[in-house]
Amino acid sequence: MTMVRNAAGRLVPDEIPGIGSVRPFEGVTGVAPSPAFNTIMEVERDVVPMGTNKIAPDLRTAIERSGLCDGMTIGFHHHLRNGDRVVAQVLEELNCMGFKNLVLMSSALLECHNFVVDYIRSGLISQIYAPIRGAVGDYFQTENEKLPPVIIRTHGGRARAVEEGSIAVDVAFIGASACDMSGNMTGMSGPSAFGSLGYGMQDARFSRHVIAVTDNLVEYPLRPRVSIPQYLVHQVVVLDSIGDPQKLATGSIRITKSPTQLALAYHAYELIAASGAICPGFSYQAGGGGISMAVTQYVREYMQRKDITGSFALGGITADMVSLLEEGRFQALFDVQSFDPAMGASMLRNPTHYEIDASWYANPLNAGCMTHQLDVAVLGALDVDVDFNVNLLTGHDGYLRSGMGGHPDAAGGAKLTVVVLPSFRRGLPSIKKRVQTICTPGASVDAIVTERGICINPRREDLLKQALDSGLNVVDIEKLRQDTEALTGVMDPVEFDESRVAAVVEYRDGSILDVVYGMKR
Amino acid sequence: MTMVRNAAGRLVPDEIPGIGSVRPFEGVTGVAPSPAFNTIMEVERDVVPMGTNKIAPDLRTAIERSGLCDGMTIGFHHHLRNGDRVVAQVLEELNCMGFKNLVLMSSALLECHNFVVDYIRSGLISQIYAPIRGAVGDYFQTENEKLPPVIIRTHGGRARAVEEGSIAVDVAFIGASACDMSGNMTGMSGPSAFGSLGYGMQDARFSRHVIAVTDNLVEYPLRPRVSIPQYLVHQVVVLDSIGDPQKLATGSIRITKSPTQLALAYHAYELIAASGAICPGFSYQAGGGGISMAVTQYVREYMQRKDITGSFALGGITADMVSLLEEGRFQALFDVQSFDPAMGASMLRNPTHYEIDASWYANPLNAGCMTHQLDVAVLGALDVDVDFNVNLLTGHDGYLRSGMGGHPDAAGGAKLTVVVLPSFRRGLPSIKKRVQTICTPGASVDAIVTERGICINPRREDLLKQALDSGLNVVDIEKLRQDTEALTGVMDPVEFDESRVAAVVEYRDGSILDVVYGMKR
Repeated sequence: MTMVRNAAGRLVPDEIPGIGSVRPFEGVTGVAPSPAFNTIMEVERDVVPMGTNKIAPDLRTAIERSGLCDGMTIGFHHHLRNGDRVVAQVLEELNCMGFKNLVLMSSALLECHNFVVDYIRSGLISQIYAPIRGAVGDYFQTENEKLPPVIIRTHGGRARAVEEGSIAVDVAFIGASACDMSGNMTGMSGPSAFGSLGYGMQDARFSRHVIAVTDNLVEYPLRPRVSIPQYLVHQVVVLDSIGDPQKLATGSIRITKSPTQLALAYHAYELIAASGAICPGFSYQAGGGGISMAVTQYVREYMQRKDITGSFALGGITADMVSLLEEGRFQALFDVQSFDPAMGASMLRNPTHYEIDASWYANPLNAGCMTHQLDVAVLGALDVDVDFNVNLLTGHDGYLRSGMGGHPDAAGGAKLTVVVLPSFRRGLPSIKKRVQTICTPGASVDAIVTERGICINPRREDLLKQALDSGLNVVDIEKLRQDTEALTGVMDPVEFDESRVAAVVEYRDGSILDVVYGMKR
Repeated sequence: MTMVRNAAGRLVPDEIPGIGSVRPFEGVTGVAPSPAFNTIMEVERDVVPMGTNKIAPDLRTAIERSGLCDGMTIGFHHHLRNGDRVVAQVLEELNCMGFKNLVLMSSALLECHNFVVDYIRSGLISQIYAPIRGAVGDYFQTENEKLPPVIIRTHGGRARAVEEGSIAVDVAFIGASACDMSGNMTGMSGPSAFGSLGYGMQDARFSRHVIAVTDNLVEYPLRPRVSIPQYLVHQVVVLDSIGDPQKLATGSIRITKSPTQLALAYHAYELIAASGAICPGFSYQAGGGGISMAVTQYVREYMQRKDITGSFALGGITADMVSLLEEGRFQALFDVQSFDPAMGASMLRNPTHYEIDASWYANPLNAGCMTHQLDVAVLGALDVDVDFNVNLLTGHDGYLRSGMGGHPDAAGGAKLTVVVLPSFRRGLPSIKKRVQTICTPGASVDAIVTERGICINPRREDLLKQALDSGLNVVDIEKLRQDTEALTGVMDPVEFDESRVAAVVEYRDGSILDVVYGMKR
C-alpha cells in the first residue's frame, strides 16, 4: 500500500489489503459535507415466514438456520463490557462447527475477549472490525502475518459505516437480558440487565439476519419496554448466561479519590464555569473516567448553587447522571451505553432517561446526532501532544490498550471540549511532542487541563481571554511539556516496524486519521 | 396492458402504465415465502451538516431547501384522518410554487382531501399511491384520462413497499402534535395530539428528506416521549394548525346502538367463544366499526366472567381497548394508529400501550409482524361474497368509498378471522355472488356473521363442528345470499368501462389482487 500524508500530518495508506481504497483524513470540517451530500442505505434482510417458531433449541441450530457461510461477517455489541459471555459462546460453537475465515465485527473487544486470538490462529476469524486491546491487540502488533489491519472506528463512525454499508453484517448475535419468543428484547430488565442496548439497536436494523441471545426468556410480549422490536429479529437462542453485568463497570468507571486528580478536575470545572457554558439549558457529556466524573461533581455543585437547570446529558451514562436527572438538574438523559447495570432500572422509572441507538448518538452523516448538540464535553486521554491531538489507543510502550469510544464524536460536536489528564502517570509524561496515535484531532479539542495548569488551544482566543479574566492558571502547552519532561525525563521512542500496519484509525467521517504499526521484532 | 386471471379469479393487468410490470395474486400462501427469501432495503437519505438550524421560517422555504423537483414523490400520513390539514397546506404551497407532476403517497386520503382533485387538474399531482375515496375516487372512476391507476395497498403492504423500495419517497411531510427544534416528534402530546405516529415512524426511516410539520414547537429535547428521533428529520416547519384531532374519530368509530347489529355482534362473540379462542394469553384485534366494537364488549364481559387475561390487543386502538388494558384484561396494546385522540395520553401513562410502526404492525415480509401473531380478528366489510371474499373499497354503485386499512393484514395473520356485517343495508344485500372488488381473499376469512346466521368457510371444518356443537345458528352462505335476495331483490350490475382501470388493489405481498374500473359514461 502507498502511504500518503493526511491533514493531521500522519502517513496513512490510501489502500488497505482486504478492504480496498480509503481516503486520508482531510480535517474535522470533513464531517460537515455540503447539503447536497447523501448517504445510501442498502441492506439485505431475511424474511421470517408466518408461523415460524423463532426459538432455536441451541446455538448450533440457530447458526445453521441463519445461512452463515465461511467468509461472512458476524456482529456483536459490547454492552456487557468485560462481563460479556456472548462472543465466547458463539465463537466456540462456530469453531466446533468448522467455520473458517469469518469477519468479526463488534462495537468493542475487551480483555475478556482475549480468547479471540485462539480463533484467529485456528482460522475461524480472518478479519476484525472493532476497537481491540489486550491479547488481540498484542497479536496484531507482534504476531500477525496474514490478517488485514484492524479497522478501529469511533461509536459514531461505526454507526455511519453500518448505515452506509461499509460494514454489512450477515449475522448479528445480540445479547439481551430479557427477550420473548418473538425476539422483542431489551437490556433494561432481567438478572443480567446491562442498561441501554444502543449499539445492538443499530445492528438489528442493518444486519441480514439477527439472532437474539438471552438468558432470560420472558412471557410474550416483553414488558414494560421493548428496545429492539420483534420484526427485526429472526431467531431467539436461550443460553445459561449472557455474562456478568457486575463486571460492566470495572475499569475506569468510578470517581477519583486522588487529591491531585481532584485538583485537576477542579481546574477543569473552573475553566468550564469561566467560559460561561454552565447556563440554563446547557448540555453536557462526561466520559466514564474518574477525573471526568469528578468534574461532573463540581459542575453539579455549581448548578445547585446557582439553581441552574441544564437541557440534557449524553453518553455513556453513569449513576451520577441519573442523580442529576432525578434532582431536576437535567431534563433528559440520552443513553447509548450504560456504565452501570442499574441504568436499566433508571430507564424503566425515568421516562426521560432515553435509550438511543448509535446513529442517534453520534453518526456524523445522518440528519442530526446528539453529539452535534453538545455544549460541553469533558473527556479523558492516555496522552496528548502540543498540537492538542489526543491518543486514546496506544500506551507508552506502543501497544493497543483501549478503545476510543465516542471521544472523537463528542469532541467533534461539542462547543467546548475539555480533555483532562494528569501531566504524568507512573513517572511517564502525558504531554508529548507528538502523540503516538491520533484518535481525536487537536482541531476539535479546546483545552487540555492538567493538575499543573490549563492549556488552551490557540484557535480559541475567546476561551483564553475568559480563562485569564477569571485568573485561572493558564500555561503554554509547549512549556508544560518541557517542564514535565524536566521531571520525568524524555521517553525513548518506541521501535515500530513501519512495514507492518497492525491497525487503522478511522475518523468518524470514514477518512483515515492514523495507523498503529507492528512492533519491531 | 394485458389482463391475466389471478388466483382469486380476477382479471388483473400484468403491467401498469407509469408503474411497470406487476405479478398477479397467487394465493394467501404467497405471503410465506421460502426462508431463503430476502428483501433489500435501499434508501437514499440527505445529511444535515452539524450546526444547521433545522427550523425553516415557512413551508415554502422548507420545500425549497428539501431539493424537491418536478416528478418527485411526496409522502404523508393520515393519523389525523378527516381532521388533517397538513396535506392541504403543503399542496397549496407546492401549487403556488409552480411544481408539476408530483407523485402523492399517503397512508390514506379521506373526504377531507377532496381538494386533491383540483391539484390533479392543475397538473401538480400526476400519480397517487394511497387508498382513495370521495371526490378523488370519483375523479379516477369518471374523469381521469391521463393519470396511471391509483395503487391501493394495505397498511402492511405499504410498509412492505416502502421497505423494499417499491415506493421511494423523496420528501415526507410528517405532521406532529409536538416537535422540538431538532425534529424529535410525537403525536402523543400537545393540543393537536392524535396518538400513535405509526405510519409516520416508517416514513421517517425510508424517505430521502423528512420535514416535520407541527403546530406545537416545544423546548428541546421533546419530553416525555419521542416517537420519531431527530436524526431522521431534516427540517421543522411550524404552522398555525396541523388539523383538528376531534375529527379523528368521526365516521365509523363508535359502538353500535342498533338492536339488530347488537344481536349480530352477539352471534359473532358466541362463535369466537365456541371456538375456544378466548383463553388465557389470547390476542385480539377488532376493527373500528360499531359492530366490531360491540363484539369486543361481549368478549370483555366473557373475560371478566371467566377471569381470563389475554396477551395483547392490536390495531387501530380505541378507548375500549385502553379500558381492557387498564383493568388488566390484556397485558399490552400495540398501537399503529389511534382511533381516539385520547390514546396519546394513554400511551404516556401506560408503559405497555406500545406505539408501533407500520412494519411492526403488519409488513408480511419482515422478520415477524404483529398481525401474524393474532389469535382472533373481528373485522367489518362493505359486502362479501359466497366465496368469503371481502370488499372494503367500492360501494353498491361501484364507486370507491373507503380504504382497506389493515383488514387483509389482520385476516391474513389471525388464526380466527370473523367478518361481521348486516345481511343487508338500506334495502341492499351485503352477500353477493361475487363482490365487486376483492380486498381480503376468502381464503383468509374463517367466518362471516350476520344477524341472520353464521356462515363458516368450508375449509374450517373444525370451526363448523365447534359452532354446531354449541348450537349456534349456522347457515349456508349460498342459502343466506338467496334468502337475502328474496327480501331485497337482486341488484343490477354496475356498468363499468372495462377499458379503463381506475385503481389497482394490491395484496399485502405486492401481487395484484383486483382492479377497480372506471364508470361507463
